[in-house]
Amino acid sequence: MKVLISKKTNRRYYYNEDSDYHCKEGVILEKDLKSDIKTVFSNLNREFNVFQANNFDLIQKMKRGPQIITNKDLGYIIARTRVNKNSKIVEAGSGSGGATTFFASIVKEVSSYDIVNDHLKITKKNVDNLKLDNVKLTLGDLKDYIKDEKDVDLLFLDMPEPSVVLNEDITGIKDSGYIVCYLPSISQVSVLSDLVSHREDLFLEEVVETNLRYWKVWGRISRPEFRKEIDHTAFLIFIRKI
Amino acid sequence: MKVLISKKTNRRYYYNEDSDYHCKEGVILEKDLKSDIKTVFSNLNREFNVFQANNFDLIQKMKRGPQIITNKDLGYIIARTRVNKNSKIVEAGSGSGGATTFFASIVKEVSSYDIVNDHLKITKKNVDNLKLDNVKLTLGDLKDYIKDEKDVDLLFLDMPEPSVVLNEDITGIKDSGYIVCYLPSISQVSVLSDLVSHREDLFLEEVVETNLRYWKVWGRISRPEFRKEIDHTAFLIFIRKI
Amino acid sequence: MKVLISKKTNRRYYYNEDSDYHCKEGVILEKDLKSDIKTVFSNLNREFNVFQANNFDLIQKMKRGPQIITNKDLGYIIARTRVNKNSKIVEAGSGSGGATTFFASIVKEVSSYDIVNDHLKITKKNVDNLKLDNVKLTLGDLKDYIKDEKDVDLLFLDMPEPSVVLNEDITGIKDSGYIVCYLPSISQVSVLSDLVSHREDLFLEEVVETNLRYWKVWGRISRPEFRKEIDHTAFLIFIRKI
Amino acid sequence: MKVLISKKTNRRYYYNEDSDYHCKEGVILEKDLKSDIKTVFSNLNREFNVFQANNFDLIQKMKRGPQIITNKDLGYIIARTRVNKNSKIVEAGSGSGGATTFFASIVKEVSSYDIVNDHLKITKKNVDNLKLDNVKLTLGDLKDYIKDEKDVDLLFLDMPEPSVVLNEDITGIKDSGYIVCYLPSISQVSVLSDLVSHREDLFLEEVVETNLRYWKVWGRISRPEFRKEIDHTAFLIFIRKI
Repeated sequence: MKVLISKKTNRRYYYNEDSDYHCKEGVILEKDLKSDIKTVFSNLNREFNVFQANNFDLIQKMKRGPQIITNKDLGYIIARTRVNKNSKIVEAGSGSGGATTFFASIVKEVSSYDIVNDHLKITKKNVDNLKLDNVKLTLGDLKDYIKDEKDVDLLFLDMPEPSVVLNEDITGIKDSGYIVCYLPSISQVSVLSDLVSHREDLFLEEVVETNLRYWKVWGRISRPEFRKEIDHTAFLIFIRKI
Repeated sequence: MKVLISKKTNRRYYYNEDSDYHCKEGVILEKDLKSDIKTVFSNLNREFNVFQANNFDLIQKMKRGPQIITNKDLGYIIARTRVNKNSKIVEAGSGSGGATTFFASIVKEVSSYDIVNDHLKITKKNVDNLKLDNVKLTLGDLKDYIKDEKDVDLLFLDMPEPSVVLNEDITGIKDSGYIVCYLPSISQVSVLSDLVSHREDLFLEEVVETNLRYWKVWGRISRPEFRKEIDHTAFLIFIRKI
Repeated sequence: MKVLISKKTNRRYYYNEDSDYHCKEGVILEKDLKSDIKTVFSNLNREFNVFQANNFDLIQKMKRGPQIITNKDLGYIIARTRVNKNSKIVEAGSGSGGATTFFASIVKEVSSYDIVNDHLKITKKNVDNLKLDNVKLTLGDLKDYIKDEKDVDLLFLDMPEPSVVLNEDITGIKDSGYIVCYLPSISQVSVLSDLVSHREDLFLEEVVETNLRYWKVWGRISRPEFRKEIDHTAFLIFIRKI
Repeated sequence: MKVLISKKTNRRYYYNEDSDYHCKEGVILEKDLKSDIKTVFSNLNREFNVFQANNFDLIQKMKRGPQIITNKDLGYIIARTRVNKNSKIVEAGSGSGGATTFFASIVKEVSSYDIVNDHLKITKKNVDNLKLDNVKLTLGDLKDYIKDEKDVDLLFLDMPEPSVVLNEDITGIKDSGYIVCYLPSISQVSVLSDLVSHREDLFLEEVVETNLRYWKVWGRISRPEFRKEIDHTAFLIFIRKI
């Protein structure tokens, strides 16, 4: 796959065909796109940068079902919990596999649950496209399976009521391992905080939001981007199993 | 190693001794700390949670020389560039090995350079403590070595003038691989942006700041933390090699 | 004038007519809108809250030319400089009169300059609509007039190169009075900072950005608003005249 | 009063004496401080800028009891509600008079209540020092007095449970006038939002946080300030009386 970026509009296009490429900014010839040329022109004389696709591009092209978790949140989860090549992650729900595939590219083993079969199908497709072979997908409610998951370094819960899982037998989570919950509303965090404060085996380490601010730095301009939405996604809650 | 968190002050203490533990909040007995008890008391009747140390704790205890890069920045670099178990990272400078050890726990191979021998010594100590065996440390200026580094997925430059390296032979960076620069001042970003705009082999994809906001959610309280400094660290610049 | 807010879409409509009101959400009858009823229905059975317009509403309905300065910036300028009922403000350019009318509603006297006659016309219309009688509008470049402005408490410069004015005779600004510049790009701030650092009569007190974060708090939901753009406007630079 | 700013440490000192000035950075002579010289030296050869104090300085020197409301919040309240020279504001509690004195310097009339006599005394002192003659201070609980306050443009409630006042007779607030509440915790906002949603005479227009970000722009440096705490103060809730 190749990536085209229009110099005029800054739009990205993905080229994965065996033919000329047609888009709103004109037609670009297959022979140009299959060559090593790094700048091509459309028949409308628009100029494009051409790149080999990399993993970032493949992620942009992932099949989407439910909203996927952003890079700002995924990255912080890895850095804060320090899961690594030797780790096992259990997660629910699979969603579109955004977290699943990111985790699987880094850790040893990912076990992912979802109660919606369509979500699992999308996740499977994305896992296969990225050639990841360390993901186990299960159709079902994690609350019924968590007791069987052993040696878990990180339990990631992207669901409105994580207490449903936390109230089951979670002794399979390692001592000092993490449970990370992803909750959009502070009232949900409040409910979770109450549950944790009454539990001897859980310790609330951190409630945090991650934010990005994009900048335009070009020529004599250097300022935050205009009209680049800086959006709330969710609160991240880091709970230590003790 | 074990971690103690005072219930009164919320301070963390690290216990790695063969004796009783003495701190400002009193003395805690070795026999309590070596048992499986999860709540202990000091002779001043202060109560502490006791945990097995995890990787996050080990990082807090790392030997520090130059300021280390924060989790918010490290995490986003991994998530945005999608380096993974199969990747090779080259970095300069090593600093205290904060980035070195994080990257090494995730990717296949890290090659790290620093012109200050004391930095390399600290980095080596931290690499050894974390039992990482995929780090190559080199004393020297990366600009003299970059031409010999091949199949690089990510070049990470934590230095005031990354142009010094970028002006050398960087053909060892893979097509569509990333160069990530870490620069505290927007005027430095401006200089870098100018350099990239004149280069056929580089494409500036993103200039971004990452930010965290910590929350206190406890009982009826739910608000951003008071007196928790939300600090600027640096701008992250993502450049694609083409 | 009255304000209608649709309970379904949360959109605001302004009613200033002598007839029924027609909008996308249906027709609302004049007799309802001219009564004291606080909830009305359209013929499409949409429900609306009806308010007397207040100053905030009048500002939303102001005639717009150039982009107007936001409330977050205007408010902080007043609070940081502590101009008040006894103060005189000189500003350039007038723009659409957003700052002009806000300042004039608070301080004793505003003298506003613009080099574009269309801007002055819009500003005049807005000044008149708000029945403000303490604004002097001048067509021209402030650099040619600043020497004649005396007893100035605040000089507000919303222009790309404030140095053009600051290089003239500005002795009419009171001792310890303020010059506030409004600059979108940090590179412009840098140029201004250099100028000030070489001047014996100017002292740079503060460079700051103001930001707002909107929240949705309703029923069990309590989270930052989704899709509510938090936009960069400009940097505010507070310079003290000495 | 004069203000001294050390060129080395950037610390501010306030000089209001009839003698030499002694501080940690040395002794500065009275004859220098009473002259028109704008740069003076201490006996330790530290250099200081000397300014006439302005209103901003006087505010810094205000007598403090309870925490005062920040400029970022005060400014936005004025700009968002558009109260002005003709407006009447009622507030509780007086606190240290931070809001009281700011409002009084802008609007026609401020009526301020506090149940703690010491707060009222501090507020009175600050009102007197700033020579404001349009403030009425009352010792007592606003809930017992609100029914007697007429033609109110803005009711400002800086108290943990604003519902106590809102449940009384508030018909003295003008149609489309504002009630602004200042609440540190989002759970308090949630309680208030519930109350408003059940009231025919109140409409919740906006829940917002204001934030500042300070920048260091000097020479070749241009970056957000390090170690400059960006602190949460409170949520501002704008309610329209209908």
